[in-house]
Amino acid sequence: MEFRMIFATVAAACVVSMASAGETGVARLKAVSPTQVKLSDSFWAPRLEVNRTVTLPHNIKMCEETGRISNFDKAAGKMEGKYEGAYFNDSDVYKVLEGAAHILAAHPDKDMEARIAAIIARIAAAQQPDGYLNAYYTVMEPDKRWTDLPKMHELYCAGHMTEAAVAWADATGRTDFLDVARKFIHHIEGIFGFDKRHGVPGHEEIELGLVKLYRKTGEDRYLKLAEYFLAARGTKPAPKSEYLQDHIPIKQQKEIVGHAVRAMYLYSGVTDVAAIIGDKEYLQTLDTIWHDVVTRKLYVTGGVGARHEGEAFGGAYELPNDSAYAETCAGIGLAFWAHRMLILHGESRFADVLERELYNAFPSSVSLKGDTYFYVNPLSSKGEHHRKPWYGCACCPTNIVRVMPQVPGYAYARSDDGIWVNLYMAGEATIPLKSGEVKLAVDTKYPWDGRVKINVAPKTPAEFAVNLRVPEWCEKATVSVNGTAIANPTMDKGYAVIRQQWNTGDAIEMDMPMPVRRIQAHPNVAANRGRIALQRGPMVFCLEAVDNGGKVFDLVLPRDSELKTEFEPDMLGGILTVKARGLKYPARDWKDKLYLPTPAQAEPVELTAVPYCVWDNRAPGEMTVWIPEVTGLSN
Amino acid sequence: MEFRMIFATVAAACVVSMASAGETGVARLKAVSPTQVKLSDSFWAPRLEVNRTVTLPHNIKMCEETGRISNFDKAAGKMEGKYEGAYFNDSDVYKVLEGAAHILAAHPDKDMEARIAAIIARIAAAQQPDGYLNAYYTVMEPDKRWTDLPKMHELYCAGHMTEAAVAWADATGRTDFLDVARKFIHHIEGIFGFDKRHGVPGHEEIELGLVKLYRKTGEDRYLKLAEYFLAARGTKPAPKSEYLQDHIPIKQQKEIVGHAVRAMYLYSGVTDVAAIIGDKEYLQTLDTIWHDVVTRKLYVTGGVGARHEGEAFGGAYELPNDSAYAETCAGIGLAFWAHRMLILHGESRFADVLERELYNAFPSSVSLKGDTYFYVNPLSSKGEHHRKPWYGCACCPTNIVRVMPQVPGYAYARSDDGIWVNLYMAGEATIPLKSGEVKLAVDTKYPWDGRVKINVAPKTPAEFAVNLRVPEWCEKATVSVNGTAIANPTMDKGYAVIRQQWNTGDAIEMDMPMPVRRIQAHPNVAANRGRIALQRGPMVFCLEAVDNGGKVFDLVLPRDSELKTEFEPDMLGGILTVKARGLKYPARDWKDKLYLPTPAQAEPVELTAVPYCVWDNRAPGEMTVWIPEVTGLSN
Repeated sequence: MEFRMIFATVAAACVVSMASAGETGVARLKAVSPTQVKLSDSFWAPRLEVNRTVTLPHNIKMCEETGRISNFDKAAGKMEGKYEGAYFNDSDVYKVLEGAAHILAAHPDKDMEARIAAIIARIAAAQQPDGYLNAYYTVMEPDKRWTDLPKMHELYCAGHMTEAAVAWADATGRTDFLDVARKFIHHIEGIFGFDKRHGVPGHEEIELGLVKLYRKTGEDRYLKLAEYFLAARGTKPAPKSEYLQDHIPIKQQKEIVGHAVRAMYLYSGVTDVAAIIGDKEYLQTLDTIWHDVVTRKLYVTGGVGARHEGEAFGGAYELPNDSAYAETCAGIGLAFWAHRMLILHGESRFADVLERELYNAFPSSVSLKGDTYFYVNPLSSKGEHHRKPWYGCACCPTNIVRVMPQVPGYAYARSDDGIWVNLYMAGEATIPLKSGEVKLAVDTKYPWDGRVKINVAPKTPAEFAVNLRVPEWCEKATVSVNGTAIANPTMDKGYAVIRQQWNTGDAIEMDMPMPVRRIQAHPNVAANRGRIALQRGPMVFCLEAVDNGGKVFDLVLPRDSELKTEFEPDMLGGILTVKARGLKYPARDWKDKLYLPTPAQAEPVELTAVPYCVWDNRAPGEMTVWIPEVTGLSN
Repeated sequence: MEFRMIFATVAAACVVSMASAGETGVARLKAVSPTQVKLSDSFWAPRLEVNRTVTLPHNIKMCEETGRISNFDKAAGKMEGKYEGAYFNDSDVYKVLEGAAHILAAHPDKDMEARIAAIIARIAAAQQPDGYLNAYYTVMEPDKRWTDLPKMHELYCAGHMTEAAVAWADATGRTDFLDVARKFIHHIEGIFGFDKRHGVPGHEEIELGLVKLYRKTGEDRYLKLAEYFLAARGTKPAPKSEYLQDHIPIKQQKEIVGHAVRAMYLYSGVTDVAAIIGDKEYLQTLDTIWHDVVTRKLYVTGGVGARHEGEAFGGAYELPNDSAYAETCAGIGLAFWAHRMLILHGESRFADVLERELYNAFPSSVSLKGDTYFYVNPLSSKGEHHRKPWYGCACCPTNIVRVMPQVPGYAYARSDDGIWVNLYMAGEATIPLKSGEVKLAVDTKYPWDGRVKINVAPKTPAEFAVNLRVPEWCEKATVSVNGTAIANPTMDKGYAVIRQQWNTGDAIEMDMPMPVRRIQAHPNVAANRGRIALQRGPMVFCLEAVDNGGKVFDLVLPRDSELKTEFEPDMLGGILTVKARGLKYPARDWKDKLYLPTPAQAEPVELTAVPYCVWDNRAPGEMTVWIPEVTGLSN
């Protein structure tokens, strides 16, 4: 019989471990490569397969058809004509190539590899003798290179090229792309720096590429260049731009401002660098900014960046639903940052945010078929908001294709003698510890069920810790090893620590009950006053018109209505729905009225809520995440 | 047995009656003087008595102690020293004198009359040979008269002097004050006008005085001067001021803007003038602006002018509770305007607004003892908002003292052959019709009970109509005459019309059931989402800490809780309370939290609500009008 216990909540004070400087700097954990994880679950495995078989080919095709790839041929002098599209279109190609590389790493495919290699060759041909590589400038304004860093995206494109080149090298062992990227970076290094020209990327990104290149090559010069770009930020007297996070030096920043994708990439880059160099001021800034985001500016779906104007973060608690921007790329950027903060600190609270984004906003941004994408991710819709196959600014589709194959890597982290299970995904993982490889076989119906069984099979028996994340949404978790309940497991930063001698055949069973919960937003979030969101486990639900008689904005979910769940294997790829007794009040006619008595007559109706991540995959119609508990709330 | 019927709601389209031009211009009705009404009810009669015996002497004393009266002696050269206080302090004295005159009209008192006459003599002595009379300028800047109309208040003070002088003449038959006022007005008339100097009052008010003077004397010149001040408004190219409603000509105004008291006085003046001259553009403007106020900018208490900054109207639906300004004078101004619109159009909807103001915001602005006053009238308070005995800018106390004795006059209106009962107040009234005087004896416990009995006693039997207002809050009213139900009375602009031959001994019985109603605000009023206000008859209720265990902001009133009423004869002068089963949720700790599950544990509590108009007459503490129906709403 299992002993039931309640895990104590660990105070979320951010204490930086300075223990293991060196290879991993001050980071408490090490990341696990997605190639070490094979998923067999019903949520991610099908999505990864759709990403591989539909989204990747679709993105390559779109890059070809829109001239994004042939722009490089023009820059190489192999084709006549003007540059096509936006000046930052190179980056879309790089992101698709990065996605292809991650996919190939997990799923070798000679035809696809050859196709990608051919594109890389066309890119390489566009590189100028001095290393410069940017199709827009080379074709259109060869004399204007580096003349408008705040607005143009040369450094941004260079960053995406570098990330792609490292991924390609990791996946295939080929250095063709890496050579191109390094040559471009060396060119950049020759221009910008403390003792050279002042330059700050108008759109942060290169910092991420540089740290990956540093890790790949072990060469300090790349880390130093990343450090320069961070240190230079906000140091020139004018122009100061909050939009670019260039208003004050990073170490003086206290609040998240400006363009949301830029901000997320920036702080991801700061986290990378800070984790390596251990800079206390950067670490403090990251804590402060993170706190601002998650306590004041984060949608319940994991979306960030509330404002359409400037695609920007809004003020504190400015989280409108229908006019939410919550760009797909900003959510992805938050996942990048959350994962880096998790690796840095080893605290569950970062995985909570990562999980919120990965199970809600992120999968919602792509259709179940894989060929249409959201750019903007509102939390309510009058029914006119739909995914599109492509965008003139195609940052979102191309980000989806590269992030999806990286998801398995987020599930785990490691140290020399510890495994961290951050996210629960059915499948297998191989985690290298000092004592040798450990194979984990995970059996669970997560995110639809909170019961998880993990078989732990070390290559050789050894003592190490398996750290099991107790999610923020989980009020009571139980854990047992080989059938024996662990009555009072040590809790460490939100993880239940099971440290023991492990032998093949050992099995952990964990149960995280998933009642449907009504979630309230902070009362300062004006749009959500009097409303609740339904959440079960990590999944946030929404009402769609198609399940609710064609309209959702007149529906009310009384506080005392029981919330019933049902797993629907044939619906939207297999989802769990939430049903409850609701009330449909007659639509109020507020024309020329400022005050009205509450309506007396309500029609009882059954409400059906579906996971937010699958909305807009059927008949178009109204949708809302935040459901009124009383009448009289507009949408 | 009485036949029960439901009155049809009359569409509120504003059709201007052009029938009875002449003495009353285009106004459909004539006002009834408060001297023709004697109240014996438990709500108003005690308040009028407190106003007479406490508020009036207190206000005179404060005007004396603060130098407001002796400023006139300095202007008369009878006293040395500088002018004391704000440059518009003359107006406070005039308003107190107007109040005294109204009180004396209803309640002759030789001592008080002599005291007032002595003050008037001191004012008269300050009049300059050319008629000019302003203590500030005469004492401090005699050469600067009329040099800063937008900011200074010479015309405003002249207006209040004129209103007071007319009231004094009406009450006592003495022309001493009227002679002073006319001489000052003639002086003003010699300076400003279409063919003279352009001048627009910085604070509207003189228009109201001029129309009263026109009515008192029958001399067109006063009406013409009022017309000039209205027509000149907004016609000079600069400076344009929304604060002063001087941004565009009145006839082009579509929206209420700027300082709320100024705006209310302005449109009251426009209504006065338009009712006399029948100007269709003014009438249209009044309709448009009225509609803007009552459908978008009116507190449920009758307060207006949401913003502290500029004491101004806010945007549409900008009606915060805790930071509500809702100045006492602005509410009084709304009552002035509503009464004038009611007389002009004879439509119940204007009496609805008048009633809302008179039974809620207005009585709330003065303590039950009569010696402290609100300047600002919020709809929720953390317990730090209290009435004060006086203000440096004393416009509010001095307005209360003059408005209270005018309330009985608002209860009725008349035409040649009709009586309009606008508000139901126990007592007697004498209404002069063409067929002779009609005495009404009204027996009712209104506003605590909606049953009203009216004995109709014409001096000689005659046919005329008694028009009984069916308030907007009343869903079902019944009416009978001499015990016979009127099954289907003619409804005319919200009034049930009982036209018949009336004889002494005839009696009307009317029943307006008063269930407690939960009122919702338009969903665009962000502060009130998820909340209701309790209203019963005309009375709006609030929760005070003293009745609810010391705190009110954690309390919730579920939609299905029954609302019980109890009359408490010994509480706060005799009030009805509303009690209901409520829930007290544990205070939510939102620190560092953006989302929380709804609290599961609620403690059942009995909520007690008291009429808003008597709040802050006991132990200080939290107060709220808008009560959450669910948890998670801040205040």
